[in-house]
Amino acid sequence: MNFVSDNQAGAHEAVLAALQNANTGNSPGYGEDDLTAAAENAVGAVFETDCDVFFVTTGTAANALAMSALCPPWGAIYCHEGAHIQNDENTAVELLTGGARMVPIAGEGGKPDPELMRVHMTTATVHGVHNARPGAISLSNVSESGTVYRPNDLAPYRALADEFQLALHVDGARFANAVVASKASPADLTWRAGVDCLSFGLTKDGGIAAEAVVIFNGGMAEQFAYRRKRAGHLWSKQRFLAAQWLALLEDDLWLTNASHANEMARRLATGFSAHPDIDLPWPVDANELFPVIPGSIRETLRAEGLEFYDWPAQPDMTRFVTHYETDSEDIARALEIIAGARVA
Amino acid sequence: MNFVSDNQAGAHEAVLAALQNANTGNSPGYGEDDLTAAAENAVGAVFETDCDVFFVTTGTAANALAMSALCPPWGAIYCHEGAHIQNDENTAVELLTGGARMVPIAGEGGKPDPELMRVHMTTATVHGVHNARPGAISLSNVSESGTVYRPNDLAPYRALADEFQLALHVDGARFANAVVASKASPADLTWRAGVDCLSFGLTKDGGIAAEAVVIFNGGMAEQFAYRRKRAGHLWSKQRFLAAQWLALLEDDLWLTNASHANEMARRLATGFSAHPDIDLPWPVDANELFPVIPGSIRETLRAEGLEFYDWPAQPDMTRFVTHYETDSEDIARALEIIAGARVA
Amino acid sequence: MNFVSDNQAGAHEAVLAALQNANTGNSPGYGEDDLTAAAENAVGAVFETDCDVFFVTTGTAANALAMSALCPPWGAIYCHEGAHIQNDENTAVELLTGGARMVPIAGEGGKPDPELMRVHMTTATVHGVHNARPGAISLSNVSESGTVYRPNDLAPYRALADEFQLALHVDGARFANAVVASKASPADLTWRAGVDCLSFGLTKDGGIAAEAVVIFNGGMAEQFAYRRKRAGHLWSKQRFLAAQWLALLEDDLWLTNASHANEMARRLATGFSAHPDIDLPWPVDANELFPVIPGSIRETLRAEGLEFYDWPAQPDMTRFVTHYETDSEDIARALEIIAGARVA
Amino acid sequence: MNFVSDNQAGAHEAVLAALQNANTGNSPGYGEDDLTAAAENAVGAVFETDCDVFFVTTGTAANALAMSALCPPWGAIYCHEGAHIQNDENTAVELLTGGARMVPIAGEGGKPDPELMRVHMTTATVHGVHNARPGAISLSNVSESGTVYRPNDLAPYRALADEFQLALHVDGARFANAVVASKASPADLTWRAGVDCLSFGLTKDGGIAAEAVVIFNGGMAEQFAYRRKRAGHLWSKQRFLAAQWLALLEDDLWLTNASHANEMARRLATGFSAHPDIDLPWPVDANELFPVIPGSIRETLRAEGLEFYDWPAQPDMTRFVTHYETDSEDIARALEIIAGARVA
Repeated sequence: MNFVSDNQAGAHEAVLAALQNANTGNSPGYGEDDLTAAAENAVGAVFETDCDVFFVTTGTAANALAMSALCPPWGAIYCHEGAHIQNDENTAVELLTGGARMVPIAGEGGKPDPELMRVHMTTATVHGVHNARPGAISLSNVSESGTVYRPNDLAPYRALADEFQLALHVDGARFANAVVASKASPADLTWRAGVDCLSFGLTKDGGIAAEAVVIFNGGMAEQFAYRRKRAGHLWSKQRFLAAQWLALLEDDLWLTNASHANEMARRLATGFSAHPDIDLPWPVDANELFPVIPGSIRETLRAEGLEFYDWPAQPDMTRFVTHYETDSEDIARALEIIAGARVA
Repeated sequence: MNFVSDNQAGAHEAVLAALQNANTGNSPGYGEDDLTAAAENAVGAVFETDCDVFFVTTGTAANALAMSALCPPWGAIYCHEGAHIQNDENTAVELLTGGARMVPIAGEGGKPDPELMRVHMTTATVHGVHNARPGAISLSNVSESGTVYRPNDLAPYRALADEFQLALHVDGARFANAVVASKASPADLTWRAGVDCLSFGLTKDGGIAAEAVVIFNGGMAEQFAYRRKRAGHLWSKQRFLAAQWLALLEDDLWLTNASHANEMARRLATGFSAHPDIDLPWPVDANELFPVIPGSIRETLRAEGLEFYDWPAQPDMTRFVTHYETDSEDIARALEIIAGARVA
Repeated sequence: MNFVSDNQAGAHEAVLAALQNANTGNSPGYGEDDLTAAAENAVGAVFETDCDVFFVTTGTAANALAMSALCPPWGAIYCHEGAHIQNDENTAVELLTGGARMVPIAGEGGKPDPELMRVHMTTATVHGVHNARPGAISLSNVSESGTVYRPNDLAPYRALADEFQLALHVDGARFANAVVASKASPADLTWRAGVDCLSFGLTKDGGIAAEAVVIFNGGMAEQFAYRRKRAGHLWSKQRFLAAQWLALLEDDLWLTNASHANEMARRLATGFSAHPDIDLPWPVDANELFPVIPGSIRETLRAEGLEFYDWPAQPDMTRFVTHYETDSEDIARALEIIAGARVA
Repeated sequence: MNFVSDNQAGAHEAVLAALQNANTGNSPGYGEDDLTAAAENAVGAVFETDCDVFFVTTGTAANALAMSALCPPWGAIYCHEGAHIQNDENTAVELLTGGARMVPIAGEGGKPDPELMRVHMTTATVHGVHNARPGAISLSNVSESGTVYRPNDLAPYRALADEFQLALHVDGARFANAVVASKASPADLTWRAGVDCLSFGLTKDGGIAAEAVVIFNGGMAEQFAYRRKRAGHLWSKQRFLAAQWLALLEDDLWLTNASHANEMARRLATGFSAHPDIDLPWPVDANELFPVIPGSIRETLRAEGLEFYDWPAQPDMTRFVTHYETDSEDIARALEIIAGARVA
């Protein structure tokens, strides 16, 4: 019963079949092929708007390249102190932006406190060239604490972006789960809420390596193709990237996959909540759970075959992640084990 | 009859089958899986030595990351003036090295003239901090003119590398074709000839996105993992990169593929050589041909269905590339067409 | 009565006289002149050791270049959250290191809490390539809160540096004031306490533009000359930089200047401490004071001609700085004004 | 008799006097002082236009920062293959632009051939993201061969800049000498001829460290202040930079100095031209001469006390440079020695 991470999942069969189908003789390289054009259009259709779509291979590449387009090298990027872009992507942002500054911001449930952000931005603005200039806000939806922003939740950040003339980015490594959880349309969760750019990831949702930078603000897209190329992220056989996207977007497979993952998480959450000695500090909006579990119970769970991370944010905190191929029978078994575990 | 580029080919069936086989439930992410370890070992076995192997997605990433490990940010990188790393990879080297300087060197048949290199290196050394310090030599084997270095051909470059204490790199985007053409072992073509680092590419040889940086000089491998990560080139589902390598290395499929490509090119070369109005200025060592073809014949060839590039290095020069799935009947047909084409 | 900043002072007469004396016909450029050699030796003599000395023009250049020598591009740099290198030097560190990560650490009196540092370093180490690797600690002596480290105070940071194999840097923009305040020798305050590299600034102490990077750890000095050159910080007429150093080091003028500045601050501190409504939260070790002054008193002081900064670290906090040419009669007058000011 | 370089000269007395005069008590730091504003205005007056002026310390800083404002990180910068920015400033351009590509272009007398430039630009444009995008042209006036561009000479480069939508930069490390030699106004030599940005250097013309980036194209000036700061090139006591400019611009001292230097070079040129065994391949437009002198004569000249560089561009080539304080009696003596030297 593996709940370690959704990036430990395999690839959806439809994705592998699509690779097979894409393998039809010669094709133009470097993204000038028909499948790439079709996949870019398919992403545009998801968002009901014209937008610029750039496929890449990893979430780190998507985030750092997005930042390079949104923020000048002397800019500050504000994100939650626990965000993936801050803690799990080494110094990719610094490298690809040419040296922008990360500014981690505290906040409940994985969401940076807008008022704290405001203080930082104001100070930096007053300080002129001496400080990094406010450049971009990066939120994660789903957040690194498993919580989800609904469209209205994005308003305070958009207001800051307007006030300080900076860009609003969303790291959507689990965007499918956020869409399902929020019941909002992809458009409402992004550009209609003032998001300038989305890192849209389907790797965790059934792809092999399926990430995209989606730019809603045309001015920011200018020259992005150069950025992707010089970072080594333009595939020669780009159609094999595009094919994954077409497979996952077809018939909303991406949402079906995410719905399953979220439902599996919901069931697990019920089990944790019902346990007298286990606490769930943050709402389980999507497919991640962060139960606080006493050490002796953790040992029992592991002895019974449950795999999960210890999470450094709080003492005794753990992380469980479900995904598109999490087995509902595994969940049922896990729930029994959880229910039966007692503090030693 | 498409002879435009070997990166316009599809993927070998064995590669797609390997992806399918790799798709077996949960697996550790970020290269900590068994397939990655197995593939790294398999590459080591090819070279009959301990070496450090880092899988990446594109040749541009492999080359620029290799340079970042071999050359300091204030270093000069010497390569042929027609090299891919110089002309076709934007400013990836500058980005990933932190600003090293490319120094293009002229030379016959895609091979930089060692004496010219020496002049540049001497001047730079005398000039101290004012000039970029000699940092690395990058050769392409197969070269950008389709010629191949045999082990002895590498000696003058290694001598320069020793004299100026710099690193020797080989861009092996078509390394399989070079191995087949030279009849030398991979070890003899690399570390035994003093090569410190190889960009080893199998994308053009049947992969989807199968490139590797192979470092023979342990000291240079230090911290490479950090470089790959911060450039966004560490896949979460790394096993799908590794699986391609295992498939192509198994039973020397990579060499079988390259042998076919080289043989197809050899046949085409025969046809071009036999034609009274077509010149082949460089030896056809591997799977690329650069025939100089009068304009009216080019028109005829295209009218008859041959696809190929015009090549900017000389007037009337063209480029034809064969690959692992080039059809021998296509070649036969092309030979007939070539034989029958006449200057208008 | 200007107490705004010690960089608003002019230059000491001895410095201007030294420029005049250095102006004697032709001289080799780019630091190959005799004055530069003499000044480098003079700095070495101050520290009673062989060390590598690189003169530059600004403290920002000194700090960021020092970081580039001490910390890899994927490294983390730990400093106090209020440090100049963190808040007042834009993104110079990111630019000149090639993208290292700044990690601000809280702590009393401008000194980062070693235990908090330790938590960050441990987490980063466990997290491997995913996080910035611990690379360097940067302390400011005098700190940004006007406090001073004595040699023993540096021990916990050196212990961390040893444990995590990273470098220890001191930003000595006011190093003269720290030497005077601590009564420790320059050697005891640096390399004997395990400091690998010092940004040694005399601009605030009577120079025009007199900063130096002093590297005590030979291995780290390698190639620093290339770093300085490519950042545009090697003067052609370098002797005019060196002359400033010789003037200020001669007969310990730098310490005489700093003694005066510290004494002027001590007197001011007495006045603030004696006032019933003014608080001095941090010890006044050197030439900076951060009194917390009620708004109506601040207005009175300004109306009477005192110039000083409001300081954002706390409500009602201000900053007063004295320097080598602060007039003792100004101090006497200021003390009277302070003593007479009352909350409205 | 030192003819090695104009940066081996000292500083003009008026400059040192200006530093003394600037040393009047406290003054706002970081360029917010009155002298800086006055000096910026004085530079504007020289060019008879509104322009943005940023004082820095070295020509390398001026050039590389200028490039960072004119050219994107994925851009190509075209300059003469012998230009200072290409050969004598290490990899400063790569560092401060974030990785732009230098493209050296051959050409007579230190001036890059516009037709060769055109070929490179066309190829790069056709090649799209795969090649560095044409970004900027950088000319040196005076050129590295001592020749001068008159306003009309700039037209072909401006035409290329318009055609490929790139920026035109002039490295004016010896701009004063070019103004004097060309008899054109500073405005005619720059913005009226389509120059977007000038590196304006007075260090060689009597300053200590007096360089400026002058931006005529407002759009390019945006955010330059951030670039200067993060490169460590904003002095805290900026007035001491500004004072040098005011002194040199007052009563056209900068042109008087350059006139003297040019006249001294002219006299030397007469002597070289008259010598039967010495060749002057390039016109001596300004204050640099590149006579080709047989080895035995070189020995004689040196034995008689003449100091000069051997120049690597051609066998037997040398470089002589005069400057604002070159002694006319030294010239007279040198002319005698040259006239009397014979091939051994």
